[in-house]
Amino acid sequence: MKPLAEARELLFKRFSTYEVEGSEQLSVPEAVGRILAEPISARRSFPGVHSAAMDGVAVQASDTFGAHETSPKILAAGRDFFPVNTGHVLPPGTNAVIMIEKIQFLEDGNIRIEAPAFPWQYVRKIGEDIVATELLFPRNHRITPPCVGALLSGGVFSVSVRKKPRLAIIPTGSELVDWRHTDIGEVKPGQVFESNSYVLGAMAESYGACFQRYETRTDDIGLIASAASEAAAGEADLLLILGGSSAGSQDYAKHVIGQLGDILLHGVTMMPGKPLILGVIDEKPVFGIPGYPVSAILAFEQFVGPLICHMLGQPEPERRQLQVELTRKVASKLGVEEFLRVKLGQVGERVVATPLPRGAGTITSLTEADGIIRIPNHIEGLSDGKPVTAELLKPLSRVRKTIVTVGSHDNTLDVLADELRARHGDLTLSSSHVGSMGGLMAVKKGGCHMAGIHLLDTAEGTYNVSYLKKYLPKIPVRLIHLVLREQGLMVPRGNPKGITGISDLSREDIRFVNRQAGSGTRILLDYQLNRLGIDPATVCGYDNEEFTHMSVAAGVLGGASDVGLGIMAAAAALGLDFIPVVTEQYDLVIPEACFELTSIRLLLETIVSSRFKQRVQALGGYSTDRTGEEIAV
Amino acid sequence: MKPLAEARELLFKRFSTYEVEGSEQLSVPEAVGRILAEPISARRSFPGVHSAAMDGVAVQASDTFGAHETSPKILAAGRDFFPVNTGHVLPPGTNAVIMIEKIQFLEDGNIRIEAPAFPWQYVRKIGEDIVATELLFPRNHRITPPCVGALLSGGVFSVSVRKKPRLAIIPTGSELVDWRHTDIGEVKPGQVFESNSYVLGAMAESYGACFQRYETRTDDIGLIASAASEAAAGEADLLLILGGSSAGSQDYAKHVIGQLGDILLHGVTMMPGKPLILGVIDEKPVFGIPGYPVSAILAFEQFVGPLICHMLGQPEPERRQLQVELTRKVASKLGVEEFLRVKLGQVGERVVATPLPRGAGTITSLTEADGIIRIPNHIEGLSDGKPVTAELLKPLSRVRKTIVTVGSHDNTLDVLADELRARHGDLTLSSSHVGSMGGLMAVKKGGCHMAGIHLLDTAEGTYNVSYLKKYLPKIPVRLIHLVLREQGLMVPRGNPKGITGISDLSREDIRFVNRQAGSGTRILLDYQLNRLGIDPATVCGYDNEEFTHMSVAAGVLGGASDVGLGIMAAAAALGLDFIPVVTEQYDLVIPEACFELTSIRLLLETIVSSRFKQRVQALGGYSTDRTGEEIAV
Repeated sequence: MKPLAEARELLFKRFSTYEVEGSEQLSVPEAVGRILAEPISARRSFPGVHSAAMDGVAVQASDTFGAHETSPKILAAGRDFFPVNTGHVLPPGTNAVIMIEKIQFLEDGNIRIEAPAFPWQYVRKIGEDIVATELLFPRNHRITPPCVGALLSGGVFSVSVRKKPRLAIIPTGSELVDWRHTDIGEVKPGQVFESNSYVLGAMAESYGACFQRYETRTDDIGLIASAASEAAAGEADLLLILGGSSAGSQDYAKHVIGQLGDILLHGVTMMPGKPLILGVIDEKPVFGIPGYPVSAILAFEQFVGPLICHMLGQPEPERRQLQVELTRKVASKLGVEEFLRVKLGQVGERVVATPLPRGAGTITSLTEADGIIRIPNHIEGLSDGKPVTAELLKPLSRVRKTIVTVGSHDNTLDVLADELRARHGDLTLSSSHVGSMGGLMAVKKGGCHMAGIHLLDTAEGTYNVSYLKKYLPKIPVRLIHLVLREQGLMVPRGNPKGITGISDLSREDIRFVNRQAGSGTRILLDYQLNRLGIDPATVCGYDNEEFTHMSVAAGVLGGASDVGLGIMAAAAALGLDFIPVVTEQYDLVIPEACFELTSIRLLLETIVSSRFKQRVQALGGYSTDRTGEEIAV
Repeated sequence: MKPLAEARELLFKRFSTYEVEGSEQLSVPEAVGRILAEPISARRSFPGVHSAAMDGVAVQASDTFGAHETSPKILAAGRDFFPVNTGHVLPPGTNAVIMIEKIQFLEDGNIRIEAPAFPWQYVRKIGEDIVATELLFPRNHRITPPCVGALLSGGVFSVSVRKKPRLAIIPTGSELVDWRHTDIGEVKPGQVFESNSYVLGAMAESYGACFQRYETRTDDIGLIASAASEAAAGEADLLLILGGSSAGSQDYAKHVIGQLGDILLHGVTMMPGKPLILGVIDEKPVFGIPGYPVSAILAFEQFVGPLICHMLGQPEPERRQLQVELTRKVASKLGVEEFLRVKLGQVGERVVATPLPRGAGTITSLTEADGIIRIPNHIEGLSDGKPVTAELLKPLSRVRKTIVTVGSHDNTLDVLADELRARHGDLTLSSSHVGSMGGLMAVKKGGCHMAGIHLLDTAEGTYNVSYLKKYLPKIPVRLIHLVLREQGLMVPRGNPKGITGISDLSREDIRFVNRQAGSGTRILLDYQLNRLGIDPATVCGYDNEEFTHMSVAAGVLGGASDVGLGIMAAAAALGLDFIPVVTEQYDLVIPEACFELTSIRLLLETIVSSRFKQRVQALGGYSTDRTGEEIAV
C-alpha cells in the first residue's frame, strides 16, 4: 500500500521514457485535436506579397506628402493611383493604401485627397503574419481549429502527428452481463451490466488515446491470463484488467500480472480506488483496475490518464480549483486520501458544497458531482463552514447558475429539474435530501436557495408556517406552495401481509422501514403512532432509516421490509400498493435574500406552467390546484 | 453598426425558439459528448438486490449481538453464516456482512467472531445508487464517460439525443485557391489558400455541430446566391457565407442575403470582426462572416457558436478569467470593443501580458495567444502595470509553466522552444521581439524571466556586460552566453545591386530596410555608419523599421527593399545572399530571482545539450563553442 503521490511517482519514473512508437501523416483539417510529432515550419509566407488591407486606392506615399484640407492633392488615375480591394496585390511602385472613404472621385476619373498617406499604411506586408521557414508550431503542440488557418496559410497541408496510444481493456467478473446481448428481464439477481470498459474507453478517448475492448472474462485465471497475454503480445501500448484487483479469493488480476510479468505496486492509499495494481508485462504498463465504478474512474484519472498524457508529451489536464464551504462536517479515515464528491452552488457570496454518497459503488455520486474535495491522508475530517478547496468538474458558470435545494425529498423535484433544464438550458436544480428540518437548518445557515418542507404542526393541524416562526424567527423568508400530496403506506403488490393502516405497524410479523429523524415523514409517523398510542419501540424496523421515499420503496420492493411510509408517487413508480394515510402540504421556503434572483424567478415561473403541473399530476397522488401561491408567514 | 452586446441580443431574440428538429437514437457508448433530447429514467435499480460490499461472510446481525473479545460468538456454517465475495447476492435471512479480516475460521468449518455486526453493515442495499424509474438525467444533459456507467447500470442501453445542428459553409473570394488541388509552386501573387472554411468547420464540431463545406465561389453574385439558395433549401440549419461581408465593390454577401431573405444586421462594433452580417433566409439564420481569419474566428465565437449552444440547450462555454498586467500600454479605438490577443506568463507573483499583433489578418496572433483582453468600446486604451482581466485560451497551469522571454529576436529561440517542448511537454517558451534594450527594460520592470540581448559597447568593443551595469545597476542578474552569430547584409540572391558592405547603404539607388530603435542590430548599424562617417539621413529607407530579422529578410525577398542588416540564419532561411559584417555575441540575461526556477534550470540544461547545439549549427552562421557558459557581470 503506497501513498498516492508516491505511487504516481513510481509510475512516471518506471515509464519515463515510454512513448508511442511512430507517427501518422494526416491532412491538416483531419489533424485537429492531435499532437504534432515534429516541429512544423511555414513553407510559404503569408501574405505572400504586399497586399491591400482596405478597399481604396494604392499610391506611392511620397506622391501624397503635403496634401491637406486647405491644399488638397489631385492624383491621376493609372499613374498616381490604382484602385484596389482588400487582399489585392499592391501594384508595382506603390507602398500605401488610402481608404475609399477618404477619397473624392472627380468626374475626369482622377481623385482628390486632403491628407497624406504614410508609407505602408493599410498595407499587409509580405510575411507580416508568417515568414516562410519560420517555426509555426513546436513538436508536441496540439492542433486547434485556429492552427488549421495558420498551417494552410503557411502552405502546410499535411502534418505528422503522434499515433494515439492504444489501450487493451479486459473486463473481468463472473457477475457481469453484456448489455448488448442480455434483455433487461433476463438479468438474474446479483448480475450486473458490465459498464466500466465503456466508461474507461470513453475516458481514454478523451485523453487522446484509443482502445480495444476485449469480451468480458469470467473469474477464471486461465481465461484472464490468456486475454492479457494476447493483449501484451499485440499492438496495445497499455493493458487494463478491470475488476478482481483486490485480494479476495476470486481476485485474479494480481496473479495474472505476476505470472506474465511483474507487479510494481498493489494498493494505493486513495479512497475510492484503493485496490489498484500497477505492473509490467513485456515492458508494457499493466493496470489492475478496481471493479467499483467510482474506484475505476478515479484510479484511471490518477494513473492511466496521466500516463497517456505523458506518452503524448502533454501536461496532465488540470481542474480549476475553488474555495468552498461544506454544508456539514465530514469525518474521514486517517491514512487514506479521500476523493469526496460534492454538489456545489453559489449562495450569496459563498460557494456551498454538499457531500454526496461516499461509497465506491455509487456511480451517481460522480455523475451528480460538481466538484471533488480531496481530504489528505493525515486529516481526520473536515469541518462545516470553513473554506476548503474543491476541484471543479463543471464550469464555474454552471455552479453559479445552480439552484441549491436542500430539504425534504419529493419526486416532483425531479420533474422540476427536468422542466427547468428544458426551458433554460443553463439552469440546474440541485437537490439534497436531508429532510424538512435539515432544509430549515440549511436556510438558517445560508446554505441553500430554497428548502422543500412538509412539517405538520400536530397541535394546530397546519403545515410549515409555525415551524418557520419557531426555527427561523430572524430570517426573512417567503413560503411558496408547491403541491398537496398523498402520504401513505407502501406495501408489496397484493399487500401480502394484509396491512390496513398505521395501527398494523406494531404487529410482530411486520418489518417496517423508517425515514430519518428530522424528515417530515418521520414527524408524521411519530404523530400518527402517538395518536394511536403505539410505542415506537414496538415497531420492528423503526431504527432502520432511509433518506428518500424512493429508497423506502426500494426496500419494500426488495423484500427487506414489509411496509414503509411515503408518497404515492414513489409507490406508483415501483409498482407497489399504496394505502393512503393523509394528504399533506409540501411547500418551498425561499430566503428573502434569494427571492429576487433571476434563477428563482424562472423556477417560480416554471412551477406554475401547465406542462409542469400536468407532469406532476401524471405521477399520481398530487394536487396542483394551488401550486405557486404564496403563503403568508 | 451595432454594439456587440446589442447585436448578440438581437440574434438570440430573433432565434429564441430556433431548435434542431428531431433527435436520433444512439447506443449509450456512442452517445458520449451528445445532448439528451429527453429526460432519462432508470429502468432498473442498481444494485438490483442487496449485495455484499466486502469479501467475508453474510450473517443475520441479531445473531451476532453480544459478541466481544472476552465473549466471542461461534457461528455455524450454512446456518448462521454464508461466505460471500464483494458483489454477491446476500443470502435470504441475512442482513449484514462481516469482513474476512475479522473472522477466525475454526477447524470444524465454523467461525468465531469477537464483535457484533450492525444491521446492513458492508451491504449495498437494493437501489442504494439508482432506484428504477428515478430520473437519471434531465433533458439537455451532456453525456460524459461516467454517465455511461450510470446509464448502463440503470438498464438504459440507448438514448435519444439531439441531432447535431448542421452548418452550410460557403467560402467566397476570387483570390482563394484550394490546397487540395493546388501545388504550392503554382500559387500566383495575391492568391491565398482558403482556410477559413476548415477552421470554422472544426470550431463548429467543437461546439457539437456538424458542417457541409461548399466548394469556394469566386466573387460572382450569381454563383454565391445559387450556393446560398441551395443551402437554404437543403438540410442545413445555419448558413455561413465566408468573405465579402464588407461594403466594398466586390463584397456580395449582403446583396445575396438581402436578395434571398432579410438582413437583420450589418456591422458590429467589435475589432476584429466588424463587418459581420446577420440575416435570415427561409427562417434559417445566415451569417456573413468577414474574410480575415481573426475576424472570422471571433465573429464565430461571439455569434455562431453561441447560437449552436442555444440550439442544443447548452450554456455558452466560458473562459476562465484572470487578472493580468500588460507589459506595455495599449491605445484602442473609441467606439469599438477590441479583442486584444496576448501572451501570458507568470513572473514572480504577477501574470504578465504581452500584446500580440492586432491586425485582423494575423492568424498567428490567435494561435500564439494565451489569452484575450477585451477593451470595452468606451475606453481609449489600457495602461501598463495595472491589473486588467484576460480570458484564458490555455489552461492556467500552462501559463504558469511558460518561460517569458522578451528581447532581441534570434532564430535559435525557435529551436530552443521546440527542443524544450520535446524534452518537457509541459514547458512553453514564449518569445516577444522588442529588441535588446526592450529586453533590458522588461527585466527591470520584472516583466520577464529572461531577455536575449546583443548590445555592442562601441567604446570597449565588448558585448552586453557594460549595458547591464548601466541600465540594471540595482537588479541582480546572471548573464549566460547563448551563441556567437554572424550579422551581415542580406541581399537578393545574386546580389543584383552589387552591394559589398555598409558603405554602399548611402548609395542613391539602394533602398534599405532597418530594424527598430533599441534593437541590438540598429545599434550595430548606427555604430558602423558612424565609423564610416555616413549620415543616417542619407540612407534611403532608414526610417522603414521592422521588428525581426525574418521580417527584414522577407522585405528584401519581396523586393520592397534592396538590402537589410540581419543574421545569416534569416538570410539562409529565405534563400537570400549574405555579406558578413561582424560576429556578435548573443547572451541571455536572467534575473537572479528567476535563476533558481525549475523551468529556467531545464532551459539551461537544454541549451548545453548536443542536440540543441547541432540544430543551431545547422541553421548556419552560429558558433556554439561556449554556449551555456556564465559570464561574470
